[in-house]
Amino acid sequence: MGIHRFFTSLNDLERIIRAPGRFKFEEHNVAAHSWKVSQYAMFFATIEEREGRPVDWKSLYERTINHDFAEVFIGDIKTPVKYASPELKEILAKVEEGMMEKFILKEIPEEFQEVFFDRMKEGKDESLEGRLLEFADKLDQFYEAFAELKRGNTDKEFLKMYRIALSKILDLPLTASVDYFRDVILDDIMTEDTAIDIRKITKRVLEAH
Amino acid sequence: MGIHRFFTSLNDLERIIRAPGRFKFEEHNVAAHSWKVSQYAMFFATIEEREGRPVDWKSLYERTINHDFAEVFIGDIKTPVKYASPELKEILAKVEEGMMEKFILKEIPEEFQEVFFDRMKEGKDESLEGRLLEFADKLDQFYEAFAELKRGNTDKEFLKMYRIALSKILDLPLTASVDYFRDVILDDIMTEDTAIDIRKITKRVLEAH
Amino acid sequence: MGIHRFFTSLNDLERIIRAPGRFKFEEHNVAAHSWKVSQYAMFFATIEEREGRPVDWKSLYERTINHDFAEVFIGDIKTPVKYASPELKEILAKVEEGMMEKFILKEIPEEFQEVFFDRMKEGKDESLEGRLLEFADKLDQFYEAFAELKRGNTDKEFLKMYRIALSKILDLPLTASVDYFRDVILDDIMTEDTAIDIRKITKRVLEAH
Amino acid sequence: MGIHRFFTSLNDLERIIRAPGRFKFEEHNVAAHSWKVSQYAMFFATIEEREGRPVDWKSLYERTINHDFAEVFIGDIKTPVKYASPELKEILAKVEEGMMEKFILKEIPEEFQEVFFDRMKEGKDESLEGRLLEFADKLDQFYEAFAELKRGNTDKEFLKMYRIALSKILDLPLTASVDYFRDVILDDIMTEDTAIDIRKITKRVLEAH
Amino acid sequence: MGIHRFFTSLNDLERIIRAPGRFKFEEHNVAAHSWKVSQYAMFFATIEEREGRPVDWKSLYERTINHDFAEVFIGDIKTPVKYASPELKEILAKVEEGMMEKFILKEIPEEFQEVFFDRMKEGKDESLEGRLLEFADKLDQFYEAFAELKRGNTDKEFLKMYRIALSKILDLPLTASVDYFRDVILDDIMTEDTAIDIRKITKRVLEAH
Amino acid sequence: MGIHRFFTSLNDLERIIRAPGRFKFEEHNVAAHSWKVSQYAMFFATIEEREGRPVDWKSLYERTINHDFAEVFIGDIKTPVKYASPELKEILAKVEEGMMEKFILKEIPEEFQEVFFDRMKEGKDESLEGRLLEFADKLDQFYEAFAELKRGNTDKEFLKMYRIALSKILDLPLTASVDYFRDVILDDIMTEDTAIDIRKITKRVLEAH
Repeated sequence: MGIHRFFTSLNDLERIIRAPGRFKFEEHNVAAHSWKVSQYAMFFATIEEREGRPVDWKSLYERTINHDFAEVFIGDIKTPVKYASPELKEILAKVEEGMMEKFILKEIPEEFQEVFFDRMKEGKDESLEGRLLEFADKLDQFYEAFAELKRGNTDKEFLKMYRIALSKILDLPLTASVDYFRDVILDDIMTEDTAIDIRKITKRVLEAH
Repeated sequence: MGIHRFFTSLNDLERIIRAPGRFKFEEHNVAAHSWKVSQYAMFFATIEEREGRPVDWKSLYERTINHDFAEVFIGDIKTPVKYASPELKEILAKVEEGMMEKFILKEIPEEFQEVFFDRMKEGKDESLEGRLLEFADKLDQFYEAFAELKRGNTDKEFLKMYRIALSKILDLPLTASVDYFRDVILDDIMTEDTAIDIRKITKRVLEAH
Repeated sequence: MGIHRFFTSLNDLERIIRAPGRFKFEEHNVAAHSWKVSQYAMFFATIEEREGRPVDWKSLYERTINHDFAEVFIGDIKTPVKYASPELKEILAKVEEGMMEKFILKEIPEEFQEVFFDRMKEGKDESLEGRLLEFADKLDQFYEAFAELKRGNTDKEFLKMYRIALSKILDLPLTASVDYFRDVILDDIMTEDTAIDIRKITKRVLEAH
Repeated sequence: MGIHRFFTSLNDLERIIRAPGRFKFEEHNVAAHSWKVSQYAMFFATIEEREGRPVDWKSLYERTINHDFAEVFIGDIKTPVKYASPELKEILAKVEEGMMEKFILKEIPEEFQEVFFDRMKEGKDESLEGRLLEFADKLDQFYEAFAELKRGNTDKEFLKMYRIALSKILDLPLTASVDYFRDVILDDIMTEDTAIDIRKITKRVLEAH
Repeated sequence: MGIHRFFTSLNDLERIIRAPGRFKFEEHNVAAHSWKVSQYAMFFATIEEREGRPVDWKSLYERTINHDFAEVFIGDIKTPVKYASPELKEILAKVEEGMMEKFILKEIPEEFQEVFFDRMKEGKDESLEGRLLEFADKLDQFYEAFAELKRGNTDKEFLKMYRIALSKILDLPLTASVDYFRDVILDDIMTEDTAIDIRKITKRVLEAH
Repeated sequence: MGIHRFFTSLNDLERIIRAPGRFKFEEHNVAAHSWKVSQYAMFFATIEEREGRPVDWKSLYERTINHDFAEVFIGDIKTPVKYASPELKEILAKVEEGMMEKFILKEIPEEFQEVFFDRMKEGKDESLEGRLLEFADKLDQFYEAFAELKRGNTDKEFLKMYRIALSKILDLPLTASVDYFRDVILDDIMTEDTAIDIRKITKRVLEAH
């Protein structure tokens, strides 16, 4: 049915809940997550640009808002499966890609198919924009876990998610962004009143780096 | 952590929503679905038994309550993927099986591992109990779709789900159960006031059989 | 309307919330509760069987999945009323029984009425299966209260519910099951990170036994 | 714990859902219902006063805001049970009364016990204020059912509820209020666009009077 | 459309959530809030009356149940804006008043317009009933904040709300009510088990008075 | 507290519900809405670019993701108020602007204040990007109303919203986008099965243009 079908499928992502099956004090849907990622990415792109790295804003815009569109087909299952094995991760990436291709060929008018193939391809490559997407995506996971720990969610899953996300952010090859995050933002985070001692957990991760 | 970990993981299935991403007037979780399946199966097993087919009640009990436990690992994604391709279905079945195995080896005390491997294996085989599980599982999908159509959900997905579930039920090699469903239950269903004309849809499926 | 009416009434139990009126971080419906009870019961029946006590699996299956069906008529009110007075408990049991009877006579086809009367009668008698039902039902109350305390619910009701459920479990004449629960499961429970000090509360209940 | 305990129990009524177990497009809690009842009653009391019937406003205020407080103890179960038998209705009224009495003696400071006994007693007597409470309470049931039918809820329960509530309103010995409701309000109601043909249903009830 | 339109607009207030945009463990709607305010006000009016101050119950009834009706037009936005500047507060009060006036002139039949203008005007004046409304409205804010802090909500907003509401209550010129609240109710509040140390916060506010 | 405070305030927009106080079958939050707007805008910018109009992608990215950020301060109140009077609309725009300014000066580090002032200013000007934002924002309102009508929501508000949004889209000076929307997308929309006759409503609006 064309672009109308694409537009209504955006609404479906408002019903895909992140981290399904885990207890959480607050739920997040994939649509809202995508928006937060586009916000974080814009801020850190500004930081990188100030350090003299040219940003392709169109590309960043495309990558951030589209990076989880494929969840419309299979839901939000990647994180737990990723932990299980790298092979699974790869198989699922292929499944998603196949369904994405099928969707574009079936629903998107021919004149726009090339544009959609380009915009919907995996955005986390080694370009600056790819790195910024990865940074922003991890940052949202970090913030989701942070909010649960802050409110006293003792389920181990969020502790694990907090540590892994923080660790991956610190490891990304985006010096200016990582520095700003570590030196300024983490500092503010550690002054917050939290039910679980996030300060200690954060310091341990920092020391291991 | 042993059986305690298994027991708390049951709670996780109360947070896995069936048919995620689709608009529905009423949501159903996998735990409640499993219970309804165990209810339907008990009723139709009674019908089969009256027709002289001996029922292994323990096996039916095990199959129905455990049939979706593996969704705790990857969520409720099978239906849309199944439509996509048989290969995908197979890959996902293997992924689930692998995670199930890992879970049992890691969490279940050795003395109970064999029992769990037996209870958690795919229950939809060609035995009477396997057929009854399939019948009951499809019946719940049928009822979920019916309730949406009845309340006026015009999204095509539920129409499709209604037709496919009905069709598969009618095709199952469980003569007494299928007869009772078609001659008695479907009749009652078609007298209900519904927003969408379910009668017409049902009749068409029946005629095609 | 026959069995169709029975099947749709199962859906009503997905809308009956346990412990209505109390603040909780997570709600549970009666359908999902029934499924968890059928799971716990199967596990402890396995333990009892290993100790040489023969289990009637069909009876256990019937008792666990049907034990709260009557809540479809009057909702989940028993617990607070039970605390109020034993007379009330009795009156309400009779009210439920009366409505159950009326329902069966009106909705269930004559050929199945006897089966339904048998399956829907009070399942918590002194048989092994009756005891296992009681054990499993209390265990779910225990786990519901545990989850609230773990997440920091300071409302006294759940503390009370935790203590009473634990106490009743320990008192049940099911030696093998009670031993396994006390020696293995409770041990695991007490290693969990919890917002409220469940360890201390649990130890006090254990000492009083 | 005194009045503080009474004040926090008001919050519990925000968690008691009306007509539990039935599918509805919109849920209503007992606290919000009580407020709507106090609004309707004030309007119709104004009408009665204009017709020369003196209104005891303090009494009306007390009756409307307190009329469902007892549901804090046993939940919202009365309607289905009422349909079942008049004896049950009476037994439950006594149970409620008993729990109310116990609550007042235990929680309310002695100096206020008399006031609370007076305010919490059954408000639907034959006084003008008692009739206005009954009128307003039925009117909210009428409006709840109306809203479900308007949105296309085909479950028979709400049709039944609509008819019974309308019928009882029309039968109440409050001439001025009933006239205004029938001649002015019902007229407006019948001009609304509704999914189910409420006009026809309403006219039939009117003709039967 | 007349009074019918007014009655259905009451239902809209069940969908206006208080303190929108802030994380809370439990949401409250404006309809339920209005009911709680009418309950608190009745209790403290009883206290004032006992001290010899005559209460106009009709006026108190009108003020409490109508005090937030205007939120039907613009939602619950006042609190954060109030903090922002007194001018804003004034502008918004005028906007609300204007919309209220327009609503009455358009929807309410002429014969009732005067009554509605009277009942819907700002109720928080210097009369005893105006003070009691203010007291009760602040008390509900106090209790909403208390419940969040008790359950461990570490967001600063509720701490601020708790302190400000408590402070304003203590400052109101309603000696008997304030005394009872401070000497009896606050005492009970400070014995509760709470995740956040409410005792310390409360004592500091008391000392500052 | 700097950028950390900005990032956590994004989460607040997940709790601001659009069109508060109105009954809807599905709720939408401002964060998810912002994402959908950024998606629509990207598509129609592609169309405009193909017609030879150069797009400033950075500017479009900034405008779409930030256009409703100010709702974090006062909530989603603009639509009903806009209908009320143009003066109100202006006053509220100023209130929002004032709170935005205050927020930037207080929370955003000096080095980023200019960037934030630029990004957070009203984006709906006469530039191509401003027009695309307006088009996309109206389109989401159109789709929200469409989804409610499709599912049978008979509340007049959504009918009005559908007509006004459609009308405004058709009037926008974005020839290529408007043509594509009217000739291709609306065509697909009118083939959908809907509970309310959207075809007729749409045709009337089209004829009036």
